[in-house]
Amino acid sequence: MTRDQPRIIAMHSGDNVAIVANDFGLPEGASLPGGIRLRERVPQGHKVSLVDIPKGGEVRRYNVVIGFAALDLPAGSWVNENRLDMPKAPGTTGLPISTNIAAPGPALTGHSFLGYRNANGTVGTRNLLAITTTVQCVSGIVDHAVRRIRAELLPRYPNVGGILSLEHIYGCGVAIDAPEAVIPIRTLRNISQNPNFGGEIMTVSLGCEKLQPDRLFPEFEIPDLVRLQDDSNIGFEAMIRTIMETAEKHLERLNRRTREPCPASDLVVGLQCGGSDAFSGVTANPSLGHASDLLVRAGGTVMFSENTEVRDGIDQLTARAATPEVARALIEQLSWYDAYLERGQVDRAANTTPGNKAGGLSNIVEKAMGSIVKSGTAPISGVVAPGERADQKGLLFAATPASDFICGTLQLAAGATLHVFTTGRGTPYSLEAFPTIKVSTRSELARRWHDLIDIDAGPVATGETSIEEMGQRMFQHMLDVASGTPTWAERHGIHNSLALFNPAPVT
Amino acid sequence: MTRDQPRIIAMHSGDNVAIVANDFGLPEGASLPGGIRLRERVPQGHKVSLVDIPKGGEVRRYNVVIGFAALDLPAGSWVNENRLDMPKAPGTTGLPISTNIAAPGPALTGHSFLGYRNANGTVGTRNLLAITTTVQCVSGIVDHAVRRIRAELLPRYPNVGGILSLEHIYGCGVAIDAPEAVIPIRTLRNISQNPNFGGEIMTVSLGCEKLQPDRLFPEFEIPDLVRLQDDSNIGFEAMIRTIMETAEKHLERLNRRTREPCPASDLVVGLQCGGSDAFSGVTANPSLGHASDLLVRAGGTVMFSENTEVRDGIDQLTARAATPEVARALIEQLSWYDAYLERGQVDRAANTTPGNKAGGLSNIVEKAMGSIVKSGTAPISGVVAPGERADQKGLLFAATPASDFICGTLQLAAGATLHVFTTGRGTPYSLEAFPTIKVSTRSELARRWHDLIDIDAGPVATGETSIEEMGQRMFQHMLDVASGTPTWAERHGIHNSLALFNPAPVT
Repeated sequence: MTRDQPRIIAMHSGDNVAIVANDFGLPEGASLPGGIRLRERVPQGHKVSLVDIPKGGEVRRYNVVIGFAALDLPAGSWVNENRLDMPKAPGTTGLPISTNIAAPGPALTGHSFLGYRNANGTVGTRNLLAITTTVQCVSGIVDHAVRRIRAELLPRYPNVGGILSLEHIYGCGVAIDAPEAVIPIRTLRNISQNPNFGGEIMTVSLGCEKLQPDRLFPEFEIPDLVRLQDDSNIGFEAMIRTIMETAEKHLERLNRRTREPCPASDLVVGLQCGGSDAFSGVTANPSLGHASDLLVRAGGTVMFSENTEVRDGIDQLTARAATPEVARALIEQLSWYDAYLERGQVDRAANTTPGNKAGGLSNIVEKAMGSIVKSGTAPISGVVAPGERADQKGLLFAATPASDFICGTLQLAAGATLHVFTTGRGTPYSLEAFPTIKVSTRSELARRWHDLIDIDAGPVATGETSIEEMGQRMFQHMLDVASGTPTWAERHGIHNSLALFNPAPVT
Repeated sequence: MTRDQPRIIAMHSGDNVAIVANDFGLPEGASLPGGIRLRERVPQGHKVSLVDIPKGGEVRRYNVVIGFAALDLPAGSWVNENRLDMPKAPGTTGLPISTNIAAPGPALTGHSFLGYRNANGTVGTRNLLAITTTVQCVSGIVDHAVRRIRAELLPRYPNVGGILSLEHIYGCGVAIDAPEAVIPIRTLRNISQNPNFGGEIMTVSLGCEKLQPDRLFPEFEIPDLVRLQDDSNIGFEAMIRTIMETAEKHLERLNRRTREPCPASDLVVGLQCGGSDAFSGVTANPSLGHASDLLVRAGGTVMFSENTEVRDGIDQLTARAATPEVARALIEQLSWYDAYLERGQVDRAANTTPGNKAGGLSNIVEKAMGSIVKSGTAPISGVVAPGERADQKGLLFAATPASDFICGTLQLAAGATLHVFTTGRGTPYSLEAFPTIKVSTRSELARRWHDLIDIDAGPVATGETSIEEMGQRMFQHMLDVASGTPTWAERHGIHNSLALFNPAPVT
């Protein structure tokens, strides 16, 4: 197969559209496999009708109705967002409950990684000192201290991988007693206890803020709490000194830790996609779904997320729920999110971006079908509300907004120690607190962003690699990165900010 | 007067409570001026009843009813938040409209500062290169580039004061077509055009984000737009190189600028308080109000803000509105904010913090009365909606949440080039884009935070300095800092993050 031959990809025998696979799209008149001639130019990733679809007729991809033809679409037509009317979202009642629970494959044994085991049994993939900030007010001081710790102290503690400030814009100037304020508060609480921080909670508070340290951590006494307004902090230099001295105690303990062999079942991986295109659901996400199935079979924990990107497939998820309780929790979370969006006078259709559309995704239904496949085929064994910590293994739905930074932040809170992020258009996104493996949906992106993309799933589109082979490769790469192999983002030292999800008002 | 003599401060002859001024409070039995004996220990800044107040009786401070006695409060009682029932907020109808317009004092002439005049007539107090980011996704790359520009390029451009990334967590993963999305978008648009950036708009976009560059800046073609997804950016190093090369063009132009004498009327100052205590309304804020009056008389622009901290004084503000249109705009903004809070099941009472209460402020009514005095006595000549740019001079109400970082961010968008921030409990808050003058309400804080507080308004409490003298000193310090005198925060290189106000949903 040469690069110039017209190539199209259909996802299911029931589909009446396929996407153009060629890097630069296909011109008018191109002859497609099956004998159809293109009636107009179609860009890469965009859909072409395989049969005559009359105005109002169903347009099917992934064997799902992704829309209705807004005009007659004779075979060979370009099918894009302007030519599709979007279906209504499925309701939240009358859904199939636990009707499609896949038999788990045979348990996978013998897979392990080198992790940092914590006193509470969790395992980190990195050994980082994280400084929890109760409020944005302290972040200028903490940033300054972190820079000095990195330069002056960290070189003496070679087993510590890094230091970071858990900075955020929450903590004061917010309606902290509003019902929904529980979300940002528990998010911060649980991020601080992420396994990658080795149980060394170090907290810097201002003193007068709404998010008082004992409100953030009601369950234990915070050791070595630094409070900038304390009388002992006579000025700026004293504050910096106090933070540095406190950090050093934690660094000493963290430095005594070493990696040890841990079974793959100790791994907790958060999956996400961003800057998606029509290949997301063809290459990267199904391969990631296969990798997810492997990790679940190995006894590990995998979470998928992004409320608006599963909303149109709610029936698939409730059917895959391991128990009716899980299905109910799923419906509850997605219904709450429906109401949240409605309060702002929008719905799940607010999700799609200009880049999604340029990449061939006509609407949120099509995007969701491609997003959801990253969850593989395993039964869904639990639901994690936003900001809560996962307390079980297997495949979990962590109910988060799809915003990359917010979803990543909430997966950190849920306890993920490794992040896999698929992208079609390309984003340099990563977080500092867990390694972020970047997967491209297309080889052209992987070639262009050669030092940002960790895995190229593009060969799945050409048939050079199967979904299973690619999924196996991803699974192995997860174990390698969990063991310490740096991601591209880690090598460059780049990362994004945390973004707390705060559905409550600011004041 | 020695430090040990009991000292209390009443704000108005109609008040039936006063606050204890002594640094460490006063013990039970202390004999107050006027002959009252304290019935119990009262901490500094906390209120004592001057007469017998029966249960249900009005408690007056600032000649305003700040609450009703929740129990009998015989003269000499400690009056705190647990002993006061809060009044309802004043309604938004039937308010006095433009009934209390103070005659302006004589015009002040001859005051000037050394500023950077821009092509559009505005004047900066600093000469900074700001990089606008359309979306959080790019911020890891931009941060990396900024560090390199600071180290490698900036030393060659000595007239440029610094470089900063206008980082935020907006731009994608948000409901960008929601009605209220206009607020964060125009905020970012207007911050990018703050006079301190010399008209050199430099923008880094990802490519696929919702906040497309031409949506952010619909009114002009963005020069030298950097888009990371562009084909020309072959990998990480190319992205960094592109940003650095683009930045250098802007640095060359900014470096040609020099300070020149500008009248005080070219100054645009944003006022704010945070970490307030009972002295805020006694020392720092009234002095700042006097400074504000001076700047208004000199033809300058002053904005005060913080919706929840003026809400209980809405009648004072509508009475001071220069025109009925201004009064209507005020009512409209505060009513919108009432509805915004109500949507989250809270009201303006959500504002107060543990620190406020520890500092003697019993509730939002009392806090608001002390906050509002920083607006001085001038007529209110305009209202700036959140995220909008001020387009007139005089005293303006910029309608923002009271959150320090959000208020500061919105005042930047409104065009403030200098920030004055009063604090009673102490916060190291400042922003990078304009100098932030920190004023303490108490001398004890100024002594403790000797290298963070720029001005100590404490001597007003002891009578060593008058409000007028302190206001005059603040006015002069504003001109000095506007001319280049660094604030403590600038000397340390510390600053807080921008925080966009986004009342619309995330997705």
